[in-house]
Parts: sequence; C-alpha cells; structure tokens
Amino acid sequence: MSLDPLSTKFAALADPTRRAILARLALGETNVSELAAPFAMSLPAVSKHLKVLESAGLIRRGREAQWRPARIEPEALKEVDGWLEQYRRLWEDRFDRLDAYLKTLQAGEKAKEKTKSRKAHASAKRRPAKR
Amino acid sequence: MSLDPLSTKFAALADPTRRAILARLALGETNVSELAAPFAMSLPAVSKHLKVLESAGLIRRGREAQWRPARIEPEALKEVDGWLEQYRRLWEDRFDRLDAYLKTLQAGEKAKEKTKSRKAHASAKRRPAKR
Repeated sequence: MSLDPLSTKFAALADPTRRAILARLALGETNVSELAAPFAMSLPAVSKHLKVLESAGLIRRGREAQWRPARIEPEALKEVDGWLEQYRRLWEDRFDRLDAYLKTLQAGEKAKEKTKSRKAHASAKRRPAKR
Repeated sequence: MSLDPLSTKFAALADPTRRAILARLALGETNVSELAAPFAMSLPAVSKHLKVLESAGLIRRGREAQWRPARIEPEALKEVDGWLEQYRRLWEDRFDRLDAYLKTLQAGEKAKEKTKSRKAHASAKRRPAKR
C-alpha cells in the first residue's frame, strides 16, 4: 500500500523503537552500530527501522560506504506539527473554557465570602456590647 | 501486536480517511451515516475507521443505540503535540541559524555598499573639478 507523505510519517512514528532512534539522533548524527548498542538489537533490525524513517523523510543517511551516519530531518516533523496546528485551537479553546469556568467559580466564592463577612460584621454591630 | 498509547495514536493518524474524519469532527459531533456521506464509503467501512480512532482515544462515541454521535477528543492530540515539543527546538534552532546567517549576509552587503559609497565619495572629492 503506498501512503501519502503525511501518513508515511505517522506510520513511521507509530513505533517506540523508531521514536527512540529519533530521540538519539536529535542529539547528533551517528551510525547503525552506535544506534544498535543501547537497544540490544541486531544491526539488520536497526537498519530496517532506519529504512522506514528514511522513506518517511524523518532522517537522512550519508552515502559513505563505511560510515553511513544517520541524521534527523526536523523539517519532516515540522510538517506533522503543521497538521496538528489546526487542532491546537480545539484543546486551547477547551482549556480557555475551563479557565473561564474556574474564574467564575472563584469569583462566586469570593462574592459569597464577602456577603458572609458583611453579614457577620453587621450582626456584630447589632449585638449589644458585652460587659 | 499491542501498541503503547502514543504508537496507537500515530498508527490511527497514518490514514488520510481517518484524518479527514477527524477534520470533520473538529467542526462538531456527528454520527456514522453523516460521516459516510461525503466519503462515498459504506457504513461498515466508516465504522471500522471510527473504531480505530476510538481505541486510540482520538474520538469518543455516545452510547445511544440509534444515534451514536462521534466526538473528537482534542486532549489525545495534545499528547502527540507534547511528544513533538522536544523536537520543536531542532527546527526552530535551524530556522534561527538560517536567520542569523541571512542577517550576516545582509550586514556584509551593507558594509560593502558603505565602503563602496565612501570610496566613490572620496574619489569624487579627489577628482579635480571640471571646467
């Protein structure tokens, strides 16, 4: 099945090992054997993951036969971010509504307290002074 | 294969029809038949996509037997955004570097122009007045 570029990116990101590889590459470029070490994975397994990330445009690999460093391509993630952008409004709106609601609650509490203290004050005044 | 929650989300988003369904639901909740109409898809096909989105936590569905409205869950996308956040620095850094480089170029151009105009000015002064 041939996917559109954005779907290919999402599919490539749908794997914790590939996301861990990206996180490692965010620190700087490196090659397959260095990438394989912390994952306790075979070189072919890591190579396969790198191929998926590369076809998705999320990484780029050097062409040197011996040392083919993999490098992260942040622009590809920016595309994912661009897609998310249209939904950001939704959770921000929701947060704003929650915020407004909390402020209403707080305002209500304050108003209640004010009324209470005013009443207490008034009743203290009405109370005849003890001696 | 059972995926971690973030992988499940990415996998669910790796399909243009499911992303289109999300875009429709961002406008407001609706049910399967209304969702199916613009896609020229069978109801079972749409239901299947909704199931994938629901297991990923990206939508929620009402429990009413007749009208089971689907609703987008923006919080789930916020989680994807949170993951992206750590990489934002990378493309922003790259943009900042490009910006700094362009400014250096511009500054260089301006300096050159200044020197040129100063030289032109100086040579005009040195040039003996005609006539």
